Amino acid sequence: MELRNDILLRALQRQPVDRTPVWIMRQAGRYLPEYLATRAEAGSFMNLCQTPELACEVTLQPLRRFDLDAAIIFSDILTIPDAMGLNLYFVSGEGPKFEHPLRSADDIRNLPRPDIFESLGYVMDAVSLTRRELGGKVPLIGFSGSPWTLATYMIEGGSSKTFSRAKKLLYQDPELAHQLLGKLADTVTDYLNAQIEAGAQAVQIFDTWGGALSSQAYKEFSLRYMAKIVSGLKRENEGRPVPVILFSKSCNTQLEALADTGCDALGVDWTISLREARSRVGNRVALQGNLDPSILLADRAVIRREVSDTLDSFGNGNGHVFNLGHGITPEVNPDHLTELVNTVGELSPEYHRE
Amino acid sequence: MELRNDILLRALQRQPVDRTPVWIMRQAGRYLPEYLATRAEAGSFMNLCQTPELACEVTLQPLRRFDLDAAIIFSDILTIPDAMGLNLYFVSGEGPKFEHPLRSADDIRNLPRPDIFESLGYVMDAVSLTRRELGGKVPLIGFSGSPWTLATYMIEGGSSKTFSRAKKLLYQDPELAHQLLGKLADTVTDYLNAQIEAGAQAVQIFDTWGGALSSQAYKEFSLRYMAKIVSGLKRENEGRPVPVILFSKSCNTQLEALADTGCDALGVDWTISLREARSRVGNRVALQGNLDPSILLADRAVIRREVSDTLDSFGNGNGHVFNLGHGITPEVNPDHLTELVNTVGELSPEYHRE
Repeated sequence: MELRNDILLRALQRQPVDRTPVWIMRQAGRYLPEYLATRAEAGSFMNLCQTPELACEVTLQPLRRFDLDAAIIFSDILTIPDAMGLNLYFVSGEGPKFEHPLRSADDIRNLPRPDIFESLGYVMDAVSLTRRELGGKVPLIGFSGSPWTLATYMIEGGSSKTFSRAKKLLYQDPELAHQLLGKLADTVTDYLNAQIEAGAQAVQIFDTWGGALSSQAYKEFSLRYMAKIVSGLKRENEGRPVPVILFSKSCNTQLEALADTGCDALGVDWTISLREARSRVGNRVALQGNLDPSILLADRAVIRREVSDTLDSFGNGNGHVFNLGHGITPEVNPDHLTELVNTVGELSPEYHRE
Repeated sequence: MELRNDILLRALQRQPVDRTPVWIMRQAGRYLPEYLATRAEAGSFMNLCQTPELACEVTLQPLRRFDLDAAIIFSDILTIPDAMGLNLYFVSGEGPKFEHPLRSADDIRNLPRPDIFESLGYVMDAVSLTRRELGGKVPLIGFSGSPWTLATYMIEGGSSKTFSRAKKLLYQDPELAHQLLGKLADTVTDYLNAQIEAGAQAVQIFDTWGGALSSQAYKEFSLRYMAKIVSGLKRENEGRPVPVILFSKSCNTQLEALADTGCDALGVDWTISLREARSRVGNRVALQGNLDPSILLADRAVIRREVSDTLDSFGNGNGHVFNLGHGITPEVNPDHLTELVNTVGELSPEYHRE
């Protein structure tokens, strides 16, 4: 089926577009009443992820409201550890937890490399179904957590402020850490390739906790494995390149190194201006971002001004995908996202004139 | 009373020293059994802060165990909002809370500028007493939270992941935000000057949440007020300069701007190498940091190697104060801190030869 709106894919490859494409991290989420209704129908968050029809439905919901240039498959970054037998569950208000976190060297050594199609088939089914339902309207993005980010949750058993257990492993037993991260990198590679095969037209790796590491540890334990994944991806779908986006939150000091991994685009959070980020990575990669999600809590005039400033900060030329610098938060009024999306549509063409 | 060990003060002013001074953020804290005993005796955390004899006792405890080159007065960064009537309290496992957070524009407009000596006299009493008890052994550091960091807790009512309320104020009503931050900056200035008058020989401003802001918002709402405080401090105690340290966590993209505030030294977290930080700020300021606190969970050989790497990263010459990149965590074995401190003492002289 022909892709009728391909400006996301073009922008990710720094090709000419006539306006800046926009999608929003966590665009299918709790700020939407229709999401909450489907979530309630699903019973549990995991059931929502694991039922392709429901995952497809919530993936499509934001596209019915907003003129977005991409869909991103609804899922969770922690599906892989769940498939490895750690059993993911959610406690309201406390974030994700694992029933069987990694507590010993043997837990790590015995960790199975899951059969992606058997244990995570529900994700690929959701991707295929959503591609079909999208009917070529916009491209579909697949995603995964990064090996380091997955490892933090697997070792800590859930979210953490200090990542003490996970970091202790890196420093105390780097060999064992590399064994875990290598296994995760192989699995993430398989997983993203399976998503591409099922129809994902771009993929993003979320390295949510890369920013917790020292500069040196980041390169050794996070960046290295993302680079390995990038080089192992089949970056083609139906004869068209599948761009790869790396989003390493709070890692702005590492932008040059991230650009050198061979990915197509970097997600950028709001703590650095796009102007500075662009001057540092040059023409090697496209940039995706970077509005502070909190701006969506302010009124429309403020949103308009900040969207304008963000477009202006990137400046003229190709290679910008508009997004927030992190996921949209539950308390946002959906009409405010309409303002953001429409403002990008209205103001961005002037940055793409010849 | 003569100060017998002044290498901290010398290093903060980038003067020659024969080894690298070391102190540790939160060196008086829960990882020490003697601290826990005094904390239990005090009944509550606030009573520990507000009883000068007890605050002095816990300030001195780490100096009895470790060859540290400074004491830092035991207190909390949130004493100022407490003195402004917000009533600070602590819920075990949940961090600080305020009984009366700022919930309206009127709450901000009516916020009193407290009489420092009346409402925070207990801090100055603790400073004077501790200076006396130290007897010139090492210098005593005073501190405060930054205006932005104080404002986040005052508006959110406690800790926050997204700082949605606080940021909404900045974007939606910048004038009101500036009114609050200006009032806080004046109060912090008074507070630090009072600590200096009471005997503090260096002061540090903790901007724990500066890293939550966009590059532009950081300059307007956090940096600007720290610069204002720096320029308002009486930087002298008993005829000797009182160095000012700014520690803006997760703000490595702002190091140059921080160095331009006129402070003497910058705290640096572990997400940037000291080598890079030094190359960016040049000789304008000293640098303090930057070992990842998690390294103290590893064994002695690892600690030794990482301390060595940190010293090496700063390299030869003056202007380095060894510290962690954030506070020491409760689960650390105190003997591991001994290893850190002794290793700095042992390995650092080679970086200070002529």
